[in-house]
Amino acid sequence: MEISLQKLASMLNGRLEGPPEAIVVGIAGIREARSDQITFLANPKYEAFMADTQAGGIIVERHWAGTCSRPLIRVDNPYLAFARASQFFQRKPFSPLGISSHAWVDDSAKIGDEVSIHPFAYVGPGARIGDRAVLHPFSYVGSDGIIGEDTTLHANVSILERCTVGCRVTIHSGTVVGSDGFGYARDGDEYVKIPQAGMVQIDDDVEIGANCAIDRATTGKTWIQKGVKIDNLVQVAHNVVVGKNTILIAQSGISGSTEIGNNVQIGGQVGVVGHIQIGDRAGIAAQSGVTRSIGEGSIVSGTPALPHHNQLRAAAIIPKLPQLFKRIQNLEARLKQLEDGPSGG
Amino acid sequence: MEISLQKLASMLNGRLEGPPEAIVVGIAGIREARSDQITFLANPKYEAFMADTQAGGIIVERHWAGTCSRPLIRVDNPYLAFARASQFFQRKPFSPLGISSHAWVDDSAKIGDEVSIHPFAYVGPGARIGDRAVLHPFSYVGSDGIIGEDTTLHANVSILERCTVGCRVTIHSGTVVGSDGFGYARDGDEYVKIPQAGMVQIDDDVEIGANCAIDRATTGKTWIQKGVKIDNLVQVAHNVVVGKNTILIAQSGISGSTEIGNNVQIGGQVGVVGHIQIGDRAGIAAQSGVTRSIGEGSIVSGTPALPHHNQLRAAAIIPKLPQLFKRIQNLEARLKQLEDGPSGG
Amino acid sequence: MEISLQKLASMLNGRLEGPPEAIVVGIAGIREARSDQITFLANPKYEAFMADTQAGGIIVERHWAGTCSRPLIRVDNPYLAFARASQFFQRKPFSPLGISSHAWVDDSAKIGDEVSIHPFAYVGPGARIGDRAVLHPFSYVGSDGIIGEDTTLHANVSILERCTVGCRVTIHSGTVVGSDGFGYARDGDEYVKIPQAGMVQIDDDVEIGANCAIDRATTGKTWIQKGVKIDNLVQVAHNVVVGKNTILIAQSGISGSTEIGNNVQIGGQVGVVGHIQIGDRAGIAAQSGVTRSIGEGSIVSGTPALPHHNQLRAAAIIPKLPQLFKRIQNLEARLKQLEDGPSGG
Repeated sequence: MEISLQKLASMLNGRLEGPPEAIVVGIAGIREARSDQITFLANPKYEAFMADTQAGGIIVERHWAGTCSRPLIRVDNPYLAFARASQFFQRKPFSPLGISSHAWVDDSAKIGDEVSIHPFAYVGPGARIGDRAVLHPFSYVGSDGIIGEDTTLHANVSILERCTVGCRVTIHSGTVVGSDGFGYARDGDEYVKIPQAGMVQIDDDVEIGANCAIDRATTGKTWIQKGVKIDNLVQVAHNVVVGKNTILIAQSGISGSTEIGNNVQIGGQVGVVGHIQIGDRAGIAAQSGVTRSIGEGSIVSGTPALPHHNQLRAAAIIPKLPQLFKRIQNLEARLKQLEDGPSGG
Repeated sequence: MEISLQKLASMLNGRLEGPPEAIVVGIAGIREARSDQITFLANPKYEAFMADTQAGGIIVERHWAGTCSRPLIRVDNPYLAFARASQFFQRKPFSPLGISSHAWVDDSAKIGDEVSIHPFAYVGPGARIGDRAVLHPFSYVGSDGIIGEDTTLHANVSILERCTVGCRVTIHSGTVVGSDGFGYARDGDEYVKIPQAGMVQIDDDVEIGANCAIDRATTGKTWIQKGVKIDNLVQVAHNVVVGKNTILIAQSGISGSTEIGNNVQIGGQVGVVGHIQIGDRAGIAAQSGVTRSIGEGSIVSGTPALPHHNQLRAAAIIPKLPQLFKRIQNLEARLKQLEDGPSGG
Repeated sequence: MEISLQKLASMLNGRLEGPPEAIVVGIAGIREARSDQITFLANPKYEAFMADTQAGGIIVERHWAGTCSRPLIRVDNPYLAFARASQFFQRKPFSPLGISSHAWVDDSAKIGDEVSIHPFAYVGPGARIGDRAVLHPFSYVGSDGIIGEDTTLHANVSILERCTVGCRVTIHSGTVVGSDGFGYARDGDEYVKIPQAGMVQIDDDVEIGANCAIDRATTGKTWIQKGVKIDNLVQVAHNVVVGKNTILIAQSGISGSTEIGNNVQIGGQVGVVGHIQIGDRAGIAAQSGVTRSIGEGSIVSGTPALPHHNQLRAAAIIPKLPQLFKRIQNLEARLKQLEDGPSGG
């Protein structure tokens, strides 16, 4: 892919300061970019590299006040413009593979147009695969599973029976959608399994990282809503709802029946108990353990999670505890002396 | 599956209050159940829905004292009865697939009767597959592995060489049984691998969730005993023993050679160090870090884990630490003033 | 494999006290070893078993002063000698499988000599597989991936496009190398994906456990250097560098662009934030949350991580907090009484 600076600036809704006809062919970091590549400045700590960069063009904030001898493209949100430019340069020609003769596609499955079903992909009875979907080797779509248009399942992904995946979804290798929820009734010392008769519904524009596990509902559905982004090794239990555009960072885990709102940010290694609500736009810091419902826009941290401001203040005292302990001992001794009066003096 | 209320009540060891010949065909939540479905009341907070439910029958505790216009089935343990009824309704007709011509089964493997070995399943040299076992696509049984009767391996499960899996076991997608334990000897700055020559033994009636890792023993066996239930993304290191009917919740991890008793409950994201004992019926709260052996029936929480009662009391003070800090400062100032005597007044 | 005690002692750079021609055929624990097996004594707590062991030979520290009626092999480092002896006894005859007719190897891939490419392994376009490499069933090497000599990919391993794996590397089942890094730019409430155009480079002599996820870099590489050992279910984000001979224990997670030095030890369930440096030979205790860069040789623990010595002292106070709270209340009451003077008496 190659493009003129003028066309690139126009595509990014930016204003060009530099030669409109100059051609760039890719994107790179500010230190590595060559004269036929563009770069971007979003983080002030990289400003020091502006003097020496060889980049063929630099995406900067519209009102950036520094000076630079290289061409600039001024935009409202440099990081977003970088993302869009990067997508442009990474775009690959569309060349669907069709259905490999080494894939297994059940006769009763319905396959869309221009799909890529690679060798050793498996599509079960009654499954439906949307147009332009890509199923990499060892990807599995169980009975009556549905894969939407333009969706990609990477190698070794498992979508179990009756689960549905929307359009423009990407699921990375090793992830499992539709494993049984963890539900048992006790019978004395033993456990009797509660059949997990529900499914998982994944809406459009979701991305799920590698080696995640998203359990099917006991009845009804576990629901990952539109635009959700999930990192690697994340656990989503049965009947959880994850609201639109919410982010779950690596190794976090959400227990059964919890409902997470829209635009929530959940940090790495966070644990959330079951049957609670997390309000829209809430934020949960990494490694927190959330034991109660959280209101809209709240920011919490720690285990058990507290409002982040309180947590920070408490955490700041922790290293001082040994010293506080001594100060209390000292107070006690001195107070004793006072109480004992002059005879103790 | 359809059944009369009388037969269902009998199957659940319950007492019917309602028309014996009425037919029900399924099970659903108290708010969703239709007149041909049964439901159950196990949690008092759902009692409010008893008035309006349309359910064809409701499983309640034997001595439940409320009133309801719908048929009731009175049982000792409604949740357990729900589990059994749900199993009844979810039961599928048994129709074994046989051995797919697109599976790989080594000539030296021994395959039982009425198995279902799906396309792209792999059974290695010397392996044995029990009667009625189900191996889904991309499930792997390494050399000399043993899979018991009525056991199911879901898609993308790996059972490595010489590991054994009992009868009526279910292993969900992506789980690995028999990866090498993590063992090295230092040689200066480098590490020399200690061969992991043991295996994993999984006993009958175990269920293991998605994307778990259960390492083989250095020598001898890593042992998951009868009736254990393991959630998703759980780590079990080499030479660990997990006792009968113990539960490990998602993302928990057990370090090498630790022995866990029977009927233990280990919460989500718990970490347990190596070479310790966890007594029968102990309970470990979510996200705890267990650094010492725990006695029978103990309940612990926190990192490092303490008796849960102590932990709760300590945790309740944490948010008050900034205030305590100020109170100590205040005490010090006032005490100083008293010590300095009237001249300071 | 069988060997005389004399040859074994010589192989281990040890000094034999016992019959040089006696033959041993394997290795076992001190309590289990038979008279044709050797064992070792590295941990003093096993010294009690020296009196009764039936072992055909015991590897002990060069200056071990106890007495034992069985043959001894005195070495500098008994645990290391045990590792080497164990490798000797576990060695299997080399018998490459070649390329299975049931594997998929793209015509444009380059395959080395004496490889073992099992049924249902997949090698994509332009990939290169080194001499004696072993690809187990359902292992996936994407386009232009490189697998070094003597490297083993276990069942269900995914190496994605353009990633490179060095020589003598072992990757256990379910692990994913080269999933997309987690990178998005916000556009109002929605997220725009930042293409992850980089790759993962895994150097020689690395071992990676089961069900790990190692993300490809945004640009450039995520880099696992020589001799690194990674346990199960570990997360390594995009652009992370893990230095030589560093150890990552199970369920730990390293956030994006963090650089970890050489010979670092990272405990189980540790979380490390992004964009920081961990110095050579640092140690991070299990379940810690590391939020700042750590200097060479530092040992830290807790969340947020503190120097381990400080953390231990603070943690020791935590259980005493309720009692401290009462002591402060008591001080306040007594001080109040003093302040109120004799009239309060």
